[in-house]
Amino acid sequence: MKKIAIIMGSDSDWPVVQSAAETLQKLEISFEARVLSAHRTPLAAIEFARNARENGFGVIIAAAGRAAHLAGVLAGNTTLPVIGIPIGSVGLGGMDALLSTVQMPSGIPVATVAIDGASNAALLAAEMLALSDKRLETALDQMRADMATAVEKKNEKLQEKIQKISL
Amino acid sequence: MKKIAIIMGSDSDWPVVQSAAETLQKLEISFEARVLSAHRTPLAAIEFARNARENGFGVIIAAAGRAAHLAGVLAGNTTLPVIGIPIGSVGLGGMDALLSTVQMPSGIPVATVAIDGASNAALLAAEMLALSDKRLETALDQMRADMATAVEKKNEKLQEKIQKISL
Amino acid sequence: MKKIAIIMGSDSDWPVVQSAAETLQKLEISFEARVLSAHRTPLAAIEFARNARENGFGVIIAAAGRAAHLAGVLAGNTTLPVIGIPIGSVGLGGMDALLSTVQMPSGIPVATVAIDGASNAALLAAEMLALSDKRLETALDQMRADMATAVEKKNEKLQEKIQKISL
Amino acid sequence: MKKIAIIMGSDSDWPVVQSAAETLQKLEISFEARVLSAHRTPLAAIEFARNARENGFGVIIAAAGRAAHLAGVLAGNTTLPVIGIPIGSVGLGGMDALLSTVQMPSGIPVATVAIDGASNAALLAAEMLALSDKRLETALDQMRADMATAVEKKNEKLQEKIQKISL
Amino acid sequence: MKKIAIIMGSDSDWPVVQSAAETLQKLEISFEARVLSAHRTPLAAIEFARNARENGFGVIIAAAGRAAHLAGVLAGNTTLPVIGIPIGSVGLGGMDALLSTVQMPSGIPVATVAIDGASNAALLAAEMLALSDKRLETALDQMRADMATAVEKKNEKLQEKIQKISL
Amino acid sequence: MKKIAIIMGSDSDWPVVQSAAETLQKLEISFEARVLSAHRTPLAAIEFARNARENGFGVIIAAAGRAAHLAGVLAGNTTLPVIGIPIGSVGLGGMDALLSTVQMPSGIPVATVAIDGASNAALLAAEMLALSDKRLETALDQMRADMATAVEKKNEKLQEKIQKISL
Amino acid sequence: MKKIAIIMGSDSDWPVVQSAAETLQKLEISFEARVLSAHRTPLAAIEFARNARENGFGVIIAAAGRAAHLAGVLAGNTTLPVIGIPIGSVGLGGMDALLSTVQMPSGIPVATVAIDGASNAALLAAEMLALSDKRLETALDQMRADMATAVEKKNEKLQEKIQKISL
Amino acid sequence: MKKIAIIMGSDSDWPVVQSAAETLQKLEISFEARVLSAHRTPLAAIEFARNARENGFGVIIAAAGRAAHLAGVLAGNTTLPVIGIPIGSVGLGGMDALLSTVQMPSGIPVATVAIDGASNAALLAAEMLALSDKRLETALDQMRADMATAVEKKNEKLQEKIQKISL
Repeated sequence: MKKIAIIMGSDSDWPVVQSAAETLQKLEISFEARVLSAHRTPLAAIEFARNARENGFGVIIAAAGRAAHLAGVLAGNTTLPVIGIPIGSVGLGGMDALLSTVQMPSGIPVATVAIDGASNAALLAAEMLALSDKRLETALDQMRADMATAVEKKNEKLQEKIQKISL
Repeated sequence: MKKIAIIMGSDSDWPVVQSAAETLQKLEISFEARVLSAHRTPLAAIEFARNARENGFGVIIAAAGRAAHLAGVLAGNTTLPVIGIPIGSVGLGGMDALLSTVQMPSGIPVATVAIDGASNAALLAAEMLALSDKRLETALDQMRADMATAVEKKNEKLQEKIQKISL
Repeated sequence: MKKIAIIMGSDSDWPVVQSAAETLQKLEISFEARVLSAHRTPLAAIEFARNARENGFGVIIAAAGRAAHLAGVLAGNTTLPVIGIPIGSVGLGGMDALLSTVQMPSGIPVATVAIDGASNAALLAAEMLALSDKRLETALDQMRADMATAVEKKNEKLQEKIQKISL
Repeated sequence: MKKIAIIMGSDSDWPVVQSAAETLQKLEISFEARVLSAHRTPLAAIEFARNARENGFGVIIAAAGRAAHLAGVLAGNTTLPVIGIPIGSVGLGGMDALLSTVQMPSGIPVATVAIDGASNAALLAAEMLALSDKRLETALDQMRADMATAVEKKNEKLQEKIQKISL
Repeated sequence: MKKIAIIMGSDSDWPVVQSAAETLQKLEISFEARVLSAHRTPLAAIEFARNARENGFGVIIAAAGRAAHLAGVLAGNTTLPVIGIPIGSVGLGGMDALLSTVQMPSGIPVATVAIDGASNAALLAAEMLALSDKRLETALDQMRADMATAVEKKNEKLQEKIQKISL
Repeated sequence: MKKIAIIMGSDSDWPVVQSAAETLQKLEISFEARVLSAHRTPLAAIEFARNARENGFGVIIAAAGRAAHLAGVLAGNTTLPVIGIPIGSVGLGGMDALLSTVQMPSGIPVATVAIDGASNAALLAAEMLALSDKRLETALDQMRADMATAVEKKNEKLQEKIQKISL
Repeated sequence: MKKIAIIMGSDSDWPVVQSAAETLQKLEISFEARVLSAHRTPLAAIEFARNARENGFGVIIAAAGRAAHLAGVLAGNTTLPVIGIPIGSVGLGGMDALLSTVQMPSGIPVATVAIDGASNAALLAAEMLALSDKRLETALDQMRADMATAVEKKNEKLQEKIQKISL
Repeated sequence: MKKIAIIMGSDSDWPVVQSAAETLQKLEISFEARVLSAHRTPLAAIEFARNARENGFGVIIAAAGRAAHLAGVLAGNTTLPVIGIPIGSVGLGGMDALLSTVQMPSGIPVATVAIDGASNAALLAAEMLALSDKRLETALDQMRADMATAVEKKNEKLQEKIQKISL
């Protein structure tokens, strides 16, 4: 199975990005995480993207804040799917990062998820790999079933809270 | 090879969505396009998403404007990758559709592209299929090379325009 | 008298939604509160909406944050009035939830109240039931009279504060 | 059956508001439409709201643009449900009217629909009246069924459009 | 000399509005402050505005948050100048209150100051009264001179801070 | 009676600003209009503001678009009331001009009216002069009465439009 | 004297960017204009930036729309000053391009001018070169004097327009 | 070598602006910092700008919040390059200051950096001076090399964090 790359501009993004890694671990998908900067290490970033496919990567996840160019720059140097996570803890609450990530010009798509949506980025990458991986398909379906169960559990907790109020 | 589904809320979205279909045709990827509504035909939309994988689809592209729920509702009923195109010709210039499409809750990702970014949605779908399709991988690389050539052509045109000004 | 349904995507929304329940209690309107998700439990959500009228509900209140599809999805499956509360504690301060809730397409209305406006959602539901319930009409009028009195009380407090400053 | 009031600040709002009237006609709900201004005829507006219930109205629909105070001012003078339509053709594309209409303080709800969402305002009013009107309930259900059929028709048109492209 | 009225929707606005009162005291302008609500005490608010001129008021300052209708409603019932202060501590950081206050329809102006700009509201009221009050004109000029001096003092403090860094 | 100054950054602003002049003419208030730029003729702008009071002006109206500094710069050089009109035909639909005009720092107020709200700027200036001018007070009250009549006329027109639809 | 580079993502940006070229011609500053894309020709863009200084360039002007990465990517590969022009004719009226251009991370500045502010970009470049070029300094001062004269001319035109109205 | 001026509206801006001073110190560029206000000390601000070049300054950095006129007013009185820092800690999170600083009219450019982007303002000023200063050019290149190294260090830290999670 192909690996997932998780790229971020600084290790300070890790508290947000971490849940992407954890979701991949849960799904038993191997990944590598790296700090790379579209502006401070542009050649290293480009080189990474250009060699990603032959280095065994299937999907690249890139997280960046403010004028978030990282996902776009990586996408301009590979035809692997690139998923962008706009970081919301810096700049204008993530609105700047969202627009910088999603409003890509024709020809170079970035699959953008919600502001700080790191676990969804991992799930999206998994859905892509699952197109040719039966085990992963089953694992994703199982996760959905677990989510539905979790909603039911939350509903039970809610009933307790309401009971307290009504008494 | 798996098919791509292109879903839209109304046939009036077709002028924007059309370039997704054309891009898929250029890449020789088979697709089906359908009008389905998250609100007006909810059961049909859900049924479509639930059966999409076994009906031979690999990726679902969904286009919607304003409170654009279509991509999210489809994503909630399949673990196939779902790509969302926010439509900009109705509502608040696409800002409402963008936020309604991209800000999905944890567990249900939608791969969002730019407002009216239909051809990028198709390219993104192609990149996903190319993970296990060598011909498509080559075709996408060729498209990138053609883009670079097109930039050079535009540069030549620009030089002519400038010349006229300088004289 | 018909019951009110209060639906939320997670029990974590309860601190905001709670004041809707309290307002209904004050008005002696019976209600049921449930956790249901447009994306994680889509069939349960749809089924709830489809059966709501015959299960004795008169109005559905739905609270959700970010790409808030819950109210819209419920509204697409019932002709009971659906009231949407955009949650502001997640995402872009509630602007994403507001647009995702209010910008509904033609044919499927959602009666949207202010960001985190849970008590107003309950009052709006009560106003609807009061159309055929004289007791409720009187209770609502009384509440308005109490509000006017409360403003006068606040005015008295203000005069004390000003006095302290002037001295 | 109770009547619906459609209030607007100027007859220039009529092109947008007209579809509310047409939707009510289709549903055979009687209505009255009036120009009233929260700022230019404040006493007439207040008087209208205060007497609306005893004058046979069940729901008030109010349309206004920019600093859209009309719905809020009417809501402050009645406990009938008030539905607000933010007008988008003046001011900041309707964002100002939306916020001025929906962000009401606690105690005075306005049921806000989409920017220029006049027909949805009428449907919402109809849903409220249908709570105690079996004929209207059936008519609304029929309308939903017609919408689903219309989606299917649009889908057929789309297939024709696609055919032309593929040939 | 005419009095200034300071109107607010709740005594909870006082921490922001207080600096308007303090500025007026510094300028020896008499004022009255009151809690009045456009929605909860609409008749009292209108009556206040209608009688303000003959009750000796020259300018009305009104502070409100979210769908801030207070200044507009008062302005619709008097031809005294009305100054609006959008409150930023509730709602969307004051953007909703700003648009609801400033985007008034033609015919009914509200002189809007910055979000939470209470002291500027008082200064603006003073500038209006100073049009026919020589003492006030001199006092305002003196305040400006004091501001310039204060800037110079801040500059001296800055030099100390810089010195510490350079050493 | 004091004169009103109408200042704009370019004669291209005149189509918007013109209605301020017309409103003043209707109220028989004398005014002078001038092109002055905060950036291109800064000394002339400052000099104008510094001498405005002794040159017989009572209020300064300033219209500017984009980074609209004109009203603020004039306000920084006089204690006459300065009214700012944000121009909406350039830049970001007037949102940039609105924020640049209204968000003034403490000590230097600008009385901001709606985007392109030129006639309201004139009315606001008139309200200020009317504080010590009985004729103007009466004229403004008459204008309000005319507005109310105009609303009634618009209502009659609306009834005709509706009649056509109902037949 | 050093040359100015004017880089744009497509020759379709030329109608906006053209005024930068014209301003440089007026100031007799030599320039080269090129189409280069941060995403479609990433290596060419980087190579251009890396060699710009030794190729005789002093300042780089870069214009781009939507997720405008061009200026940032060039800035990441040179320590020459890079000036960014956000293009407003595509995407969200230029708000997306503005945020993508200006919100650069620490270490890699982009000198951002107004949306579509091409002539200002040229003037800013000229101001930089004028730091060591006496002729250019004088030329810029002259331009400012001409601007002041132009304002006076516009004022004369305005007086004519007003005269027509008053008669 | 020419000096840099760092101008701010209040010493309370120093915590943000400080990093501009520190960056200049690191690069051994001499600077002077001053509190000057576009509105409270307009003549001093204008005089400073008009004399800046002959007083040995090469670049002016100006920081201001809300309706941030400072950079624009300075730019209107000099042809030295003026760099604007929008301050984000007051007003609307810096969006108001950004638009007030960057949306300058044609003829008067302000080189705008990110909200609170003080160190980038200093780097940009350094890049301008480096056009005729070989030492500074080398120092800036060295800084970029150090940044790349820092990214590598952050990458190493990230690997440790990941290791802990995987174990």
